[in-house]
Amino acid sequence: MTVARAVESLLPDLQILYYGDLARTPYGSKSPETIIDYSITNTEFLLNHGAQAIIIACNSAASVASEILRQKFEVPIFEVISPAVDRAITATHSGNIGIIGTRATVRSEIYEQKIMQKAPELRVFSKACPLLVPLVEEGWIDARETKMILRKYLSPLKQKQIDTLVLGCTHYPLLKNLIQHRMGKKKISLIDSSIEVALTLQRYLNKNPDFNKNLQYGSVSKYFVSDITKAATNTAEKIFGRPIGLIKV
Amino acid sequence: MTVARAVESLLPDLQILYYGDLARTPYGSKSPETIIDYSITNTEFLLNHGAQAIIIACNSAASVASEILRQKFEVPIFEVISPAVDRAITATHSGNIGIIGTRATVRSEIYEQKIMQKAPELRVFSKACPLLVPLVEEGWIDARETKMILRKYLSPLKQKQIDTLVLGCTHYPLLKNLIQHRMGKKKISLIDSSIEVALTLQRYLNKNPDFNKNLQYGSVSKYFVSDITKAATNTAEKIFGRPIGLIKV
Repeated sequence: MTVARAVESLLPDLQILYYGDLARTPYGSKSPETIIDYSITNTEFLLNHGAQAIIIACNSAASVASEILRQKFEVPIFEVISPAVDRAITATHSGNIGIIGTRATVRSEIYEQKIMQKAPELRVFSKACPLLVPLVEEGWIDARETKMILRKYLSPLKQKQIDTLVLGCTHYPLLKNLIQHRMGKKKISLIDSSIEVALTLQRYLNKNPDFNKNLQYGSVSKYFVSDITKAATNTAEKIFGRPIGLIKV
Repeated sequence: MTVARAVESLLPDLQILYYGDLARTPYGSKSPETIIDYSITNTEFLLNHGAQAIIIACNSAASVASEILRQKFEVPIFEVISPAVDRAITATHSGNIGIIGTRATVRSEIYEQKIMQKAPELRVFSKACPLLVPLVEEGWIDARETKMILRKYLSPLKQKQIDTLVLGCTHYPLLKNLIQHRMGKKKISLIDSSIEVALTLQRYLNKNPDFNKNLQYGSVSKYFVSDITKAATNTAEKIFGRPIGLIKV
């Protein structure tokens, strides 16, 4: 949803077809095989509903399923990792980049690999933060307990004197202020993968006018979910700043 | 798994067919409709593998799906809630009973309803504790952060001067010591739904020798899961005190 919101901000007339697999989330603690399996069916669902391009708006799915989805499907497939990697490489001065994400994302070492391919001189330090998603979903965005847990997760990265931190999970932008505060007085660059992928999509559309002109502009965006709960409805409203009509499928 | 372990302790030769839906857990934050849907397919899976009785070994599933499963399937169906209710009614002296569970369990008000049916003079206070499952799954069983979060969750119950607390989620027995400590000096009765349902099953088998003699004794128990991760394997080993061969289906 943070990705959908970022795309909407940059391209307000573009029709978004969103699918949130709430009946099976969270993905970050599941095995790569299961995440790949779900990512394929989710992509098929969106293509069947008319999607002309796909954004894998989940770092856990992007980290293990991007290549397979690109092999399997013809449409352009964007994902939240590469844009964040590019931004992190540009942003760092010290050369020390931190990555936080779910267990699946961190274990995949996808950020390290992608950064090393492009800038082997940089140093990458990553830390799995599996409790942050449930804390965000619980709405404890400013709770003392969340601050403590963040301190525990972030202190090894702080010791490595990173100056750039990739928020490698689309839930984490909601904790941006706390994370910035927790990383200490020295300002560090927080890379928000939701914003970066939206910017990448925008650049792609500008560079590919033929593709762009065939997209659906002006049609109402649709927010499909595989399960509806009060918490999901609240989170959607918090992220978009307005009520979002979720469609259960 | 805590339920399977409790059954194994009481009835060591009985063949257990376990199904852990790890590809779709946690259930506690999902809607009743989705939980019911999953509970039906999970039950069908176990029956197809030869199960002759079912234990719904999850409070979230038991709270919303027990009646439906009993209507739909012919075999005896046990669940973790009623046995814990009976024990809590017997255990309380002050008449103030606390219930902790997931959001789905607490929102269902099933414990309140069942206690009120049997003992309307008692007072029941419940509190949803959605972060405890991720904390247990993260292995933070003795962490300072877990203690803080428990204090936050338990303080309203402590104020109500409960003397009996139902651990209304099969993850919570792993936090028993912390919970007992957090509830203060005065000893309170912690009701472990895993143990209570195993005792109920044992009594049922003693009372129904004809049913009992047709059960599989001596065959190796099977632990099926819909997803395998390192964390799941570790948790199984922690609960059983020995490695458990999980079978991915």
